[in-house]
Amino acid sequence: MNLKTYTDKLEQLDFSNMHLKDFLLTWEHSPEELEAVFTLADALRDMRENNISPRIFDSGLAVSNFRDNSTRTRFSFASACNMLGLTVQDLDEGKSQIAHGETVRETANMISFMADVIGIRDDMYIGKGNSYMREVADSVQQGFDAGILEQRPTLVNLQCDIDHPTQSMADLLHIIHEFGGIENLKGKKVAMTWAYSPSYGKPLSVPQGVVGLFTRMGMDVVLAHPEGYEIMSEVEQVALKNAEQTGGSFTKTHSMAEAFQDADIVYPKSWAPYSAMEKRTELYSAGDQAGIDQLELELLAQNAQHKDWECTEEMMQLTKDGQALYLHCLPADISGVSCQQGEVVASVFDRYRDPLYKEASYKPYIIAAMIFLARIKDPVATLNRLAEQANQRFRE
Amino acid sequence: MNLKTYTDKLEQLDFSNMHLKDFLLTWEHSPEELEAVFTLADALRDMRENNISPRIFDSGLAVSNFRDNSTRTRFSFASACNMLGLTVQDLDEGKSQIAHGETVRETANMISFMADVIGIRDDMYIGKGNSYMREVADSVQQGFDAGILEQRPTLVNLQCDIDHPTQSMADLLHIIHEFGGIENLKGKKVAMTWAYSPSYGKPLSVPQGVVGLFTRMGMDVVLAHPEGYEIMSEVEQVALKNAEQTGGSFTKTHSMAEAFQDADIVYPKSWAPYSAMEKRTELYSAGDQAGIDQLELELLAQNAQHKDWECTEEMMQLTKDGQALYLHCLPADISGVSCQQGEVVASVFDRYRDPLYKEASYKPYIIAAMIFLARIKDPVATLNRLAEQANQRFRE
Amino acid sequence: MNLKTYTDKLEQLDFSNMHLKDFLLTWEHSPEELEAVFTLADALRDMRENNISPRIFDSGLAVSNFRDNSTRTRFSFASACNMLGLTVQDLDEGKSQIAHGETVRETANMISFMADVIGIRDDMYIGKGNSYMREVADSVQQGFDAGILEQRPTLVNLQCDIDHPTQSMADLLHIIHEFGGIENLKGKKVAMTWAYSPSYGKPLSVPQGVVGLFTRMGMDVVLAHPEGYEIMSEVEQVALKNAEQTGGSFTKTHSMAEAFQDADIVYPKSWAPYSAMEKRTELYSAGDQAGIDQLELELLAQNAQHKDWECTEEMMQLTKDGQALYLHCLPADISGVSCQQGEVVASVFDRYRDPLYKEASYKPYIIAAMIFLARIKDPVATLNRLAEQANQRFRE
Repeated sequence: MNLKTYTDKLEQLDFSNMHLKDFLLTWEHSPEELEAVFTLADALRDMRENNISPRIFDSGLAVSNFRDNSTRTRFSFASACNMLGLTVQDLDEGKSQIAHGETVRETANMISFMADVIGIRDDMYIGKGNSYMREVADSVQQGFDAGILEQRPTLVNLQCDIDHPTQSMADLLHIIHEFGGIENLKGKKVAMTWAYSPSYGKPLSVPQGVVGLFTRMGMDVVLAHPEGYEIMSEVEQVALKNAEQTGGSFTKTHSMAEAFQDADIVYPKSWAPYSAMEKRTELYSAGDQAGIDQLELELLAQNAQHKDWECTEEMMQLTKDGQALYLHCLPADISGVSCQQGEVVASVFDRYRDPLYKEASYKPYIIAAMIFLARIKDPVATLNRLAEQANQRFRE
Repeated sequence: MNLKTYTDKLEQLDFSNMHLKDFLLTWEHSPEELEAVFTLADALRDMRENNISPRIFDSGLAVSNFRDNSTRTRFSFASACNMLGLTVQDLDEGKSQIAHGETVRETANMISFMADVIGIRDDMYIGKGNSYMREVADSVQQGFDAGILEQRPTLVNLQCDIDHPTQSMADLLHIIHEFGGIENLKGKKVAMTWAYSPSYGKPLSVPQGVVGLFTRMGMDVVLAHPEGYEIMSEVEQVALKNAEQTGGSFTKTHSMAEAFQDADIVYPKSWAPYSAMEKRTELYSAGDQAGIDQLELELLAQNAQHKDWECTEEMMQLTKDGQALYLHCLPADISGVSCQQGEVVASVFDRYRDPLYKEASYKPYIIAAMIFLARIKDPVATLNRLAEQANQRFRE
Repeated sequence: MNLKTYTDKLEQLDFSNMHLKDFLLTWEHSPEELEAVFTLADALRDMRENNISPRIFDSGLAVSNFRDNSTRTRFSFASACNMLGLTVQDLDEGKSQIAHGETVRETANMISFMADVIGIRDDMYIGKGNSYMREVADSVQQGFDAGILEQRPTLVNLQCDIDHPTQSMADLLHIIHEFGGIENLKGKKVAMTWAYSPSYGKPLSVPQGVVGLFTRMGMDVVLAHPEGYEIMSEVEQVALKNAEQTGGSFTKTHSMAEAFQDADIVYPKSWAPYSAMEKRTELYSAGDQAGIDQLELELLAQNAQHKDWECTEEMMQLTKDGQALYLHCLPADISGVSCQQGEVVASVFDRYRDPLYKEASYKPYIIAAMIFLARIKDPVATLNRLAEQANQRFRE
C-alpha cells in the first residue's frame, strides 16, 4: 500500500478550517473540504485493508446520542470511533436524568468533560433536530470558553431533520468509486425520486441531503415526487444555488419516469411530506396523540394513492442503457420481500445488492475522516507518521 | 513465567484449519484443535496472571448478539474481547431495526464492516439458534467474497439450541486441571444427569454439549434423565460415534443413582424435554401465546413428578470414594437457598462452591483462545512475539 | 507542564495503605490519603490538558453497577476508566440474571474474572447500599483468596445511602482551587443546608458526605434543616469527632439564615428525612406499594411546609461579603426554570453556573485518582514513567 496518492491529493486541498469545527450540513463546507473527507476516507480504508492501524487516540470518549432506533448508524459510528481509538459512551435518555427536565446546556457540559466527539441523530421532528445540535454546539463552546471543558468536543450530525451528511457523503463516495473519480461526475444525471412505502413518516433528510450535496458536483439532479411530497424549500434553494455555481442543474418533476429517463443514477426512496412533518411536530409539541394517530392514517391513505411510484424493471429500462446505478440508504421496502408492495421490486434490488452494501460500507470511513479532520491539526503530517510507524491493527 | 511449555505443546498440534473459521460445534473440530484451544487458554491465563498483555488487536469490534438475558456469558465474552484488544458492540435488538423485518443477510453485513468477531447466543428455540448462526456465517462470507467486507468476521457460538461449546470447553478445561492433564481423562466416568428444577424450559445445549464433547476424551459418559426428557437424537449419535472412536462409552439410563454410581464426575442439571421444546417452537412460530402458557403449566407439572432427581449427600456418597467432582454451569437451583427444592442440596453445593467458580473462570480464556486461533495465522509466532515484548497489562 | 510539583507533594504523603483497598467512605481514609487523591487528580488533569496520556492499563474491565438512573456519575466513571485504559462493562440488572435470585456472592465473582474495578451506585434504600458494597467486597476477597479471581477488584463507592465520596471529594477539590490551596480551608464557614424541592426522596448521601468530609479540613461546618429532616446520627458523630480532631466545628441549626450568616461556602440542597427513608426501606422490603405511595404524599406535604428554605439573593447577601461560594451536586431545582419553586432562584444559580460546572468537572479525575492509587503499587514511580514517556493522548 502507498499512502502517498492520498497525501499528495490532500496537500493540494485547503481544509484548514475544518480543525475543531463541527460537521452539521454538507453545504456549510467548501468543495475542497468535502474532497478532503473523501480522500481521507479512502486512505483510512486502504490503511485498514493493509493492516495498518489508523489509531490517533490513546484514549478519549465519543458520546453518541441517538434519539431514535438505529442499527446501521450506531454501528457505523462505533466502527469509526473504534478505528481511531475512541470509546463510545451512549447517552441513553432512558437511563439518564435528561428526561427529568435538565437543560440541554447543563447535560451537554456534564457529558463532555472527556469527550472528543459527540455524534447526534435526531431526525424525528421538523425544525428540531438541527437546532438541537446547534444548541449542544453552543453549550460546549461556552463550556470550553469558561474553562470547564479542557477540549471543545466536535459534533457530527448523524442525521437531523435537514441533512444526513454521513449518508449522502457515503453515497457519493460510492458513486466516485463506481464512476472512476470525482472528476467524472459532472453532467451525470441523478434521479432522486420518491417511492411508495406502506410505512409512514420516513425522514426527509435523505433526499434533502442528496440534492444538497450532489448538486455540488456539477451533476444534473432531478427531484421527483407526487404532488404534496415537497421537501424543505430552504434545501431546494441550496440545491439551485449549488447547481448555478457548478454548472449542474436542479430540476423538479411529478413524474418518476421523467426522472428515470436517461439517468445515470437513481435513488428511489420514500419520505413523508414536509408539511405533514411540520403538522406532526406541532401535534407532538401540543402532546396531541389522537391528532398524531389521525395524521398517520391520513398519510398512509395519501401514500396509498401513489403505489405506482415503484422502482420496477420497466422503470430501470428507462435509464441510461438500462444500467443506471441504483442507490438506497437501506433498509429498502422491497415488494414481496419486506412488504407486499414497496419502493423497489425484488429483481432490481437483488441485482444491486452487493453495490448497495458496498455503498453502506463507506459510512464508517466517512465518519472517521470527519473526526480525523476536526481533531487533528495537521492531518497530512499525522497520516505520514502513522504510515511510517505502520503499527499493525492486528498482530499477524 | 515460561510460555515455552505452551508453545512447545502447540507446535506438536495441527490446528491450521482453524484460521478464519467459525467455532459453532465442538464436534466439528479435531481433537488437536480442541487441545490447541485448551493450551492457548492456559497460556493466556498464565500471561495475564504474570501481567503480560495478550493484546493482539490495536482496534477492532466484536459484535455481541444475545437473544436472551445473560450476565455470565456476556461478561465472559466482554472479558475475552477486552483482553485481546477488541471492543464489544452490542447488537441489541430492542434498539435496532431488526425487529422491523430486515433480513439476516443485510443486518449481518451492516454490522460487520469493522467486525473481527461475532458472538451469538440464541438458545431459545429448537431448530433455530444454530441455523441462524449458519445463516449469519453464510451472509458474511458472501459479503467478504463480494468485496463488501474487508475481513470475514469469525463467529463464536455462545450457546445455541444444539451445543454450548464455550461452556463445555470451560467445563472440560476445569476437569483437565482437576485431574492433572488431558491424558488422565480416559476411562473416567461422567454422570451427565437431569435434575429437578421448579423452573421451566432450561436449554438442552448444556447436556448436549457435555455428551458431545466429553465422549471425545475416551471418558465413560452416562446420560441420565427421567423418561420424557430426551435430548436431541442427533447429538446422541455424535456421542456414540465419539465413544467408538476414542475407546470411551456413551450410555443412557433413567436412574440418577445408576449414573452416580462410582462416577468420577457428576453434572446434575435441569433441562426441558426435547419434544416439548419442539412443540414450543411451533407454538411460538404460530404466535400461539395461550398454547405456550398451557405448555408451561404442563411442563412444570411434569417436572414436579421428578423431585427425587436431586443431588443429595446420599447421591454423592454413591460416587467414586464419595468424592466425585461436582460440575454445574451456574446458576444452580439450590434447595432451600435459591428455591424450596431444586437441583442440588446446599451442603453439596457449598462444598464445591470454589471449584464451581473456578470452572466458570475458564470461559473467558476459552473464548479468547477461540478468537486468537481463528484470527491469527501463526499463533505460536505471535505468542512468542508477545512474550518477547512482554508489554505489561498494567503499569506496575 | 511540570509533573514535579505533584510528585514532590505525593512523596511527602503516606498513602501506602490505599494499594488494593476499596474507597467506600471518606472517613475511613487518613488526611494524607485524601490529599493524595486530590494531588493525583490535579496531576491527571494537568497531564490530560497537556496531551500526555495517563493510561496505565493496556486492557482491563471496570464493572459499573448503577442501581438507579444516572447520567453524570455514569459519564464520570466512564471518563475516569477510559482515561486509565479500562473498558466499562455495565452490569445492567434488567439484562442480567441477577433478578432471578442469584446470590450477591456468586454474581460478584462471575463478573470479576477480568475486573480491575467495580463501581457501584446504590443509594435508594437506607441501610442497604453501603452494606451491599461490603458484601460485594467480601465476596471478591473470598474469590481472590480461593484462587478463583487472579486479581481482587477494587470497589469505588459511586454513591450509597451513607456517603457519596466521589461527589464530596470533587466538591472539595473545587473549593481547594477556589480558595488557593487545602491549607487555606481552616476556619472557613460552610453552610450545608436543606432546601425546598417539589420532588420527593432525594438521597441523604450528599449532605452526609459533605459534613463527614469538610469537617476533616478544620472548617466550621453548619448543618441546617427544618425539624424532621435529620440526617443519620452516625454521620453526625463522625462530623463531631472530625471537628474535634482538626480544630474545626460541627454545629446544627433549624435556621437557614443562621447557617448562611457570614458563610464562606453555601451548599443548599434538598434531601429526604432519615426517618422517612427508614420507613420507606421497611415498606419496600414488605413490598407495600400502597404504603410507599402514601408515604410519598406525606413527604411532599411535609416538604411544602418549608418553601421558605430557598437560596435567594437575600439569603446570599447574608454570607461573607455577600460572596459565598455556592455549591450544588447538580441537577438543581431552579425556581422558575426547572420547577415553579425550588432550591435556588435563577439569578443566583446563573451567577454560579460556570463554577458549578467546573465543580462537577473534577469528578472524573477524583475517580481516576482513586483507581490509580488502589491499583498501582508505587504511584509516584509510575507517574514519573508516564511523564518520561510522554505518550500523546492524541496524535498532534
